[in-house]
Amino acid sequence: MSVIVQKYGGTSVGSIERIRAVAARVYRAKQAGHDVVVVVSAMAGETDRLLGLAHEVSALPDTRELDMLLATGEMVSIALLAIALKEAGCEAASFTGTQGGIVTDEVHSRARIKQITPTRLQHALHRGIVPVVAGFQGMNETQDFTTLGRGGSDLSAVALAAALQADVCEIYTDVDGVYSADPNIVPDARRLARVSYDEMLELARLGAKVLQARSVLFAKKYEVPVVVKSSLVENSEGTLITNPDQDMEQVVVAGVAVDKNQAKITLTRLPDRPGIAAKLFGEIARANLVVDMIIQNASEGGLTDISFTVPRTEAEQALQFAQKTLSDLEAEEATLQTGIAKVSIVGVGMQSHSGVASRMFEALAAENINILMISTSEIKVSCIIQDRYAELALRTLHDAFELGERP
Amino acid sequence: MSVIVQKYGGTSVGSIERIRAVAARVYRAKQAGHDVVVVVSAMAGETDRLLGLAHEVSALPDTRELDMLLATGEMVSIALLAIALKEAGCEAASFTGTQGGIVTDEVHSRARIKQITPTRLQHALHRGIVPVVAGFQGMNETQDFTTLGRGGSDLSAVALAAALQADVCEIYTDVDGVYSADPNIVPDARRLARVSYDEMLELARLGAKVLQARSVLFAKKYEVPVVVKSSLVENSEGTLITNPDQDMEQVVVAGVAVDKNQAKITLTRLPDRPGIAAKLFGEIARANLVVDMIIQNASEGGLTDISFTVPRTEAEQALQFAQKTLSDLEAEEATLQTGIAKVSIVGVGMQSHSGVASRMFEALAAENINILMISTSEIKVSCIIQDRYAELALRTLHDAFELGERP
Repeated sequence: MSVIVQKYGGTSVGSIERIRAVAARVYRAKQAGHDVVVVVSAMAGETDRLLGLAHEVSALPDTRELDMLLATGEMVSIALLAIALKEAGCEAASFTGTQGGIVTDEVHSRARIKQITPTRLQHALHRGIVPVVAGFQGMNETQDFTTLGRGGSDLSAVALAAALQADVCEIYTDVDGVYSADPNIVPDARRLARVSYDEMLELARLGAKVLQARSVLFAKKYEVPVVVKSSLVENSEGTLITNPDQDMEQVVVAGVAVDKNQAKITLTRLPDRPGIAAKLFGEIARANLVVDMIIQNASEGGLTDISFTVPRTEAEQALQFAQKTLSDLEAEEATLQTGIAKVSIVGVGMQSHSGVASRMFEALAAENINILMISTSEIKVSCIIQDRYAELALRTLHDAFELGERP
Repeated sequence: MSVIVQKYGGTSVGSIERIRAVAARVYRAKQAGHDVVVVVSAMAGETDRLLGLAHEVSALPDTRELDMLLATGEMVSIALLAIALKEAGCEAASFTGTQGGIVTDEVHSRARIKQITPTRLQHALHRGIVPVVAGFQGMNETQDFTTLGRGGSDLSAVALAAALQADVCEIYTDVDGVYSADPNIVPDARRLARVSYDEMLELARLGAKVLQARSVLFAKKYEVPVVVKSSLVENSEGTLITNPDQDMEQVVVAGVAVDKNQAKITLTRLPDRPGIAAKLFGEIARANLVVDMIIQNASEGGLTDISFTVPRTEAEQALQFAQKTLSDLEAEEATLQTGIAKVSIVGVGMQSHSGVASRMFEALAAENINILMISTSEIKVSCIIQDRYAELALRTLHDAFELGERP
């Protein structure tokens, strides 16, 4: 008998009808002989409704109170799902994050899980009861509600799967897995049967919304096999996220991605000496701005240029911080370039295959797409290009690495 | 410096605007130098909305799950009120029933408070923070949410006031106190400045909705002074519910009440011997039906009649149980009479004044109102009359005992 953690997102429990459908699916897994633990999010729209109320009261609501408020969203879902399960004939009981033994640090609204003691869930399983656990929430050491921030329910599910030594953590969502590219842009994008933790991590960081990077990291650390599948169709096979095996290493590139939320800031004519970059990025880090790619040009007459990219939404703010440091850095000016996009290829196979990056550059060159910046990691190559070529670049790379649906 | 517990019902926190008004009122009490603890209900309509969801899922939802679900209603209110208080500049923190230390028995949906350990609330008070506590809810010994049933938030407030040895428990509601009669029926009904616990208990049992009998009992047991006042008007003086004092004993009758939710069942020609009544009412009690008045007529030829009243809503069911016992009791028949009402006068003064009951009977007789049944307690006289005379009887008694507004 295996232990399965199933996680259902807000859309999957967005109406009474859908809650009934989830109950039926959970019960089938139970009847198939598995020990099932369910983790659910708030009903779609509920978290926003609660946030709306809080913001009607205050422009900057206290985060402890916000966590108390938002925790109710998942409590409603778990109670309704437990009622639906019992109605269907399946013994079930709901548990808050606290009751599920999820202990976090003290940081409200984006707490980190410190420890899980799922004693009550284990007792329930032993008695044949399906525990339905509130995702997204935990309890700090002063016994206050905390919430885990964006993607928190996935993290709850993966962490519980680790704590319960589950055989698999199934993440049910509104898509049927991880794709080789965004199917909205690349019509022949293919669902990936398997990806490695590292590939998924890169894809998540590149904007694959199906699973947040922090959940993947957690799954990797505790080696929890995660399956992402659709709750809207029957027999969705989904995508298995796990350690790489022999098969996987034969695939050079697993997926391609594009991110148009990019802006580039360039500081020109800085003195090329130690500590300059540290000063600049120290200032920016203190403002909690996230820098993605950094490129320093070759020095010329003791002067150099530094370019870096930030999310477009934070571009103006980053520019201001860069400008503040101009005199400190003895730089000439700071300029902002928008209208750019980042295309990336991801695959563990790159580690054992040479020439992957150049194949990417050639494919882009063949379409006359100019590359503005390049960055590489062990399993990823990203290029900054002009954003009007973003979709073309994505399709080109998808073809070049033969990722399309086989006929 | 005194400790005040203020309780606000669902209407008082029914909108963001009203929550702000409550915050202002709480802050004023704090600024006046009091240690204030606030207890709130769910926003008006929220509990019904949640119940509606549960009943969409199941006709008979599990009570443990229902308590998990309903507990969220008060959690939303306390979080929003705490945010509103902080926004107004008043330090505040919300606490669930659990966090407030309210421990109950295991009976979901109508739990009884077993113990209160308000350690966290006391810590908050010492640090100048206003604790905002979820009413209606507690935690049982297995650390599950429980709810206290109807009027539960009032009970939470009174119980917390007792545990915190508060100087007063203020119950804010949509009426400005307890009246000598229902002002909808008796236009010159007068707000009572004070009533005794016992009088309030009788008035609550007779249908005064302002405060439930269980809260009054609790207040009486722990001698918590309770003030019922309006949250909708400024400077509502309200009604103080406390132990009787010299002044109060001079008032013979504090209030009059009428209850039209009455039905009378009569069993005719039973053998007049021991054990017959026990058999009948034992059967009815096992069906959880509540019997109010019981009258056994004088015996005639070894045979007697027994009449009793039940809430009209339970009349058919009570009749069926009475009919079931007919042969056991060797009774002739069981009949049901509806169209009746109960008028009552209540006052601690009755204990030291004679002739109060006869004054009531005379007043009714003067209006040609026939009395069908009579029951008395130390501080109450009730008469069953035909319900078409209910309003007339109420006004008549209100006049007869000179309860009206003084000119």
